[in-house]
Amino acid sequence: MYKINDNYTKLPGSYLFSTIAKKVKAYSEANPDKKLIRLGIGDVTLPLAPSVISAMHSAVDEMGNAATFHGYAPDLGYEFLRSAIENNDYKARGVDIAIDEIFVSDGAKSDSGNIGDIFSLDNRIAVCDPVYPVYVDTNAMSGRTGVYDKATEKWTNVTYMPCTAENNFVPELPTERADIIYLCYPNNPTGAAATKEQLQKWVDFALKNGSVIIYDAAYEAYIRHEDIPHSIYECDGAKKCAIEIRSFSKNAGFTGTRLGFTVVPKELVCDGVSLNALWARRCGTKFNGAPYIIQRAGEAIYSEQGKKETRQMVDFYMNNAKVIREGLKDAGFTVYGGENAPYIWLKTPNNMTSWDFFDYLLENVNVVGTPGSGFGPSGEGYFRLTAFGTLENSLEALDRIKKMTI
Amino acid sequence: MYKINDNYTKLPGSYLFSTIAKKVKAYSEANPDKKLIRLGIGDVTLPLAPSVISAMHSAVDEMGNAATFHGYAPDLGYEFLRSAIENNDYKARGVDIAIDEIFVSDGAKSDSGNIGDIFSLDNRIAVCDPVYPVYVDTNAMSGRTGVYDKATEKWTNVTYMPCTAENNFVPELPTERADIIYLCYPNNPTGAAATKEQLQKWVDFALKNGSVIIYDAAYEAYIRHEDIPHSIYECDGAKKCAIEIRSFSKNAGFTGTRLGFTVVPKELVCDGVSLNALWARRCGTKFNGAPYIIQRAGEAIYSEQGKKETRQMVDFYMNNAKVIREGLKDAGFTVYGGENAPYIWLKTPNNMTSWDFFDYLLENVNVVGTPGSGFGPSGEGYFRLTAFGTLENSLEALDRIKKMTI
Repeated sequence: MYKINDNYTKLPGSYLFSTIAKKVKAYSEANPDKKLIRLGIGDVTLPLAPSVISAMHSAVDEMGNAATFHGYAPDLGYEFLRSAIENNDYKARGVDIAIDEIFVSDGAKSDSGNIGDIFSLDNRIAVCDPVYPVYVDTNAMSGRTGVYDKATEKWTNVTYMPCTAENNFVPELPTERADIIYLCYPNNPTGAAATKEQLQKWVDFALKNGSVIIYDAAYEAYIRHEDIPHSIYECDGAKKCAIEIRSFSKNAGFTGTRLGFTVVPKELVCDGVSLNALWARRCGTKFNGAPYIIQRAGEAIYSEQGKKETRQMVDFYMNNAKVIREGLKDAGFTVYGGENAPYIWLKTPNNMTSWDFFDYLLENVNVVGTPGSGFGPSGEGYFRLTAFGTLENSLEALDRIKKMTI
Repeated sequence: MYKINDNYTKLPGSYLFSTIAKKVKAYSEANPDKKLIRLGIGDVTLPLAPSVISAMHSAVDEMGNAATFHGYAPDLGYEFLRSAIENNDYKARGVDIAIDEIFVSDGAKSDSGNIGDIFSLDNRIAVCDPVYPVYVDTNAMSGRTGVYDKATEKWTNVTYMPCTAENNFVPELPTERADIIYLCYPNNPTGAAATKEQLQKWVDFALKNGSVIIYDAAYEAYIRHEDIPHSIYECDGAKKCAIEIRSFSKNAGFTGTRLGFTVVPKELVCDGVSLNALWARRCGTKFNGAPYIIQRAGEAIYSEQGKKETRQMVDFYMNNAKVIREGLKDAGFTVYGGENAPYIWLKTPNNMTSWDFFDYLLENVNVVGTPGSGFGPSGEGYFRLTAFGTLENSLEALDRIKKMTI
């Protein structure tokens, strides 16, 4: 008799955003006349940039012509895209990353889940708390996290690193074992950013303790302050201890277009084995590349015009962030983030739990946010709003929130 | 100190097609004047159908407009595509598959590799020998296959089911433990097809022995004989024991466009746990859907015009198959397959090994095929050619082969 992967049955409830989607669907169906404003999931609302649209039309035409048709893509992704990434995301910032250290994928969510495949199940992971659920859930599914304790809302074999207002949402170095350290800056969900000095401490820790850092830089395009690094490889020694994951979802609105990449430097070697080679093997065996059309779309954001257009998109969302942040402050909320990230992280009022505040907002002002506790126990008492809505909706949401009487 | 997944280091050499690509690249670079004909990898050469091109242009335009822009897709895929699949691939053949049993993905390779995630590492897999390498390699990478024995070219913890001319390339039921059984019909690499009667035996075996069948039906569009089932669910009881994986790569030329789907029936329950729920959780946590544009491309192949166009593509390739099959026969080769599948499987001449014949063809007539032994030890002495080239190249390859003197 075959057996299922029991680790799945240890997972508490469903994936956070599926739960939210179900709650929202139920409310909408019961209240079809209510106009919901969704500032919950990090999904974008602006259309793709004209340069991207134009590149895709050209690529579609190529696919319709035998002479320019493209079948299976190269394992690591097309050179035109990897070369654009190498030059624009790294060389332009003084970071030397080789083209065969860049692996093009269908997005950062897949990569941040799949990267665990190349590591032993014996490793102990360390995560920020609160944290993007995918890191923990995918490790739980592979059996790396022990048992889930409902009382503490923690897995027995995970090192949690609390990020709260007290430490400005950048955690202290772990005192427990931490083989694989997940870091995400600018941070989802707290909207915090890490300075180069702060990040260098993590790199030094990893080098000293033999840890590997999985660095999720999906929100790097939202950085506004000069002293915030866009890549972990801006820190000395990072190529010996860090994997970096990037996304096109937030800098160019590719949430429904799907493109990302992961950098695995060749200097990253464990017991004589190259992690670059392991990841190459994983990609070559379990993945068949992102679509040609989508890789051309990705290339387009690196053209001069594409850069200008995507910069405008990011600026637009950052203006929303400002509107929400300042509006919440005016309404008396305690607010964090939103300065180098598209996420606004707020204290729930009157010590409400995160889920109580979620229900309250949904039912009373028809605004959908994300409960902080859904990201981990230290997120309890916090709430996440995103800047990815329209300006009109962001303004209206704030208007409704300001009129609330809790 | 973190540790890597040691299972990766147990893998013998690189992924088959990467090895071939390297050999071909080396030969091409050393002999830039030679015109290679590639009948090795199962990559298509015809451009996408006009209906698909048109659907993608429309979808690209939608993505460029805020009112019609699409962000994150639904976890299981868009309903318009799943509904088209439900009706055309299943209902039209008398098979009742519900829309929420269909999971849209980026392709059959990913799915056939990822499906292992939802099963315990304790299961013993059974595979045909020869076999598409992804089934075995992905199980090896997760630690399910024991140790690789170079002498036998087998893993110690895998049940191999030889498929040779003697059993017409449809294996006998296993006498060893077989928890997860991988079947692929029409078959890659042998080009064999399984009748409904033959397939029903496997379903009955699985039901009796508590096995689950992973049925790869990527080549179903190539079936020409009436008595060959297109889906395993045409067999009684299959919904209680089988997962089916489908691809758009070969029926519509999507190798570089990336789309596929997996069917996990709700009746498939193990120890009270729904495999449909497990796979939904896996997809929701480790994947973010196929691009909207690509899902619209997939939908287009189910329109009346799309069906006509893709049928013409398949007919074109099947004509190549006939040309290659008959040509090889005329040249004195012993040939199998190519009647309900795009693969021609031949005996190497003069008892040459599969790799010797690969090198011989590459160096002497500049034709690239795939060595049978690359698919498993029972593939030794066989060789695979594919019908996915142009007619001109297929004819020229045959011409060159006929002139060979081995």
